[in-house]
Amino acid sequence: MTFAERLARAQQTSGSLVCVGLDPDPAKLPTDLGGGGNPRGDTALLYAFNRRIVDATAGVAAAYKPQIAFYSALGAEDQLVASIRYIRERAPAALVILDAKRNDIGNTAEAYAREAFERYDADAVTVNPYMGEDSVRPFLARPDRGAILLCRTSNPGAKDFQDLPVDGLPLYRRVAERAAGHWNQHRNLMLVVGATYPREMADLRRAHAEVPFLVPGIGAQGGDLEATLAAGLDARGSGLLINSSRGIIYAGGGSAAAIGAAATELHAAINRQRRRDDIDRVAGIRPGG
Amino acid sequence: MTFAERLARAQQTSGSLVCVGLDPDPAKLPTDLGGGGNPRGDTALLYAFNRRIVDATAGVAAAYKPQIAFYSALGAEDQLVASIRYIRERAPAALVILDAKRNDIGNTAEAYAREAFERYDADAVTVNPYMGEDSVRPFLARPDRGAILLCRTSNPGAKDFQDLPVDGLPLYRRVAERAAGHWNQHRNLMLVVGATYPREMADLRRAHAEVPFLVPGIGAQGGDLEATLAAGLDARGSGLLINSSRGIIYAGGGSAAAIGAAATELHAAINRQRRRDDIDRVAGIRPGG
Repeated sequence: MTFAERLARAQQTSGSLVCVGLDPDPAKLPTDLGGGGNPRGDTALLYAFNRRIVDATAGVAAAYKPQIAFYSALGAEDQLVASIRYIRERAPAALVILDAKRNDIGNTAEAYAREAFERYDADAVTVNPYMGEDSVRPFLARPDRGAILLCRTSNPGAKDFQDLPVDGLPLYRRVAERAAGHWNQHRNLMLVVGATYPREMADLRRAHAEVPFLVPGIGAQGGDLEATLAAGLDARGSGLLINSSRGIIYAGGGSAAAIGAAATELHAAINRQRRRDDIDRVAGIRPGG
Repeated sequence: MTFAERLARAQQTSGSLVCVGLDPDPAKLPTDLGGGGNPRGDTALLYAFNRRIVDATAGVAAAYKPQIAFYSALGAEDQLVASIRYIRERAPAALVILDAKRNDIGNTAEAYAREAFERYDADAVTVNPYMGEDSVRPFLARPDRGAILLCRTSNPGAKDFQDLPVDGLPLYRRVAERAAGHWNQHRNLMLVVGATYPREMADLRRAHAEVPFLVPGIGAQGGDLEATLAAGLDARGSGLLINSSRGIIYAGGGSAAAIGAAATELHAAINRQRRRDDIDRVAGIRPGG
């Protein structure tokens, strides 16, 4: 199965565009898993927390996105491997995205691709574009695995370089142009486009109708869901994976019920707007999405 | 001791600008350490190989730079921890640079900084600038540790984005401007400037007289040593760490003698030219370096 087919299957099976970020901070674990009293953490608890999150969200998650820094800072690589294995058992159609933002020269990028796709068995990995084509290619070489390239990120510093004007277009648009062109021969490339900048997302969607976006920044970072969907949905009412990490996993102190409710609420809010858009599209109010 | 003092001490103690890259590829290990016949590798051999490299180069290395991908692809984090500990014993003045090219939003960047500075006890970590100020700050927060920001890298793809013109200057110059300005209040920032582009390095040195450069690209990547030194040395005949990885560690099939000889040769070639420059400077032929 190609990466594009994997992505479509993940969205269709779940009926969802939700991506759940697995960023377990040992200082913020639920109290019944040792949170608070155990700030540097017994790393085995990370796996227990992730199991709880996956159990509570498996019905409404199209994807899971562990942020590797939260594991590697603690030497908890084994917990990450176990968590991904658990996702495979519990939510076999869900996509696993390793959020690692890798970027390096060719032979090193190949080692990073092995880390993501072999060691961790991820379906996709986030990649930083700064070093250019030969640093990104090793992540795009397998048609069944994807690379998700940083384009317009959700953080305040995104403007420092990504918005700089290059011959009349901001740098992030130049990144998208390169990426969506001949780099993407296997149709296994996505772009990271932050929810905190819906105008930029709309520009990118107009320029790149077919490229799926991974959207961080909803929730803790302040992105607006309605504006994001209006800006980013493609003509089929899809083309997005909308990530929430802290907004889901620490909901209500991290109880299973609260985590499940937060994910379900995000899922429902997204799908309400997708249905409205569908009706508008059928009625000809919003032609072509 | 501040990072700037650590760097100066490393260069003065060794009398050297050489940085030895510790990028052990299991498929290329010396035959007496199981190379060739053991392509996916017993990871314990990575540590044995690194010990050999450190023993053979301790007298002429100002710094060691392990590339983390070569360890994380194999689950060999413990070998990396042990290798860095061995460097501390065997070459206590040498700087340890974790080549990881990290970059992420604030709370994640803090986790990556803990990975580099606490888990691995590195003196400095390489950082990608694409996500801007808040993604780089956590790596610059400790005056005793440094961040080495990608600026103009040594690979062919460097031109794809780093050379794009932004108001009359290439992007990499805009990165250097920001970085060398108010981000650098602790004087603990270096720039990665590839040896394969000496003209760009000379431009950067003219614009930023005081910022030290980490220089990859000598050796396997084809960078020219003489042109690099002419372009990059500062007014005091220093300001560079010149990295060689494959050119040193796989010299002569990876025997201790060949590794030591390759490092010593690079060290001697660098210092011959530094002495010539000193004589020129004293004679007024090359005022101010």
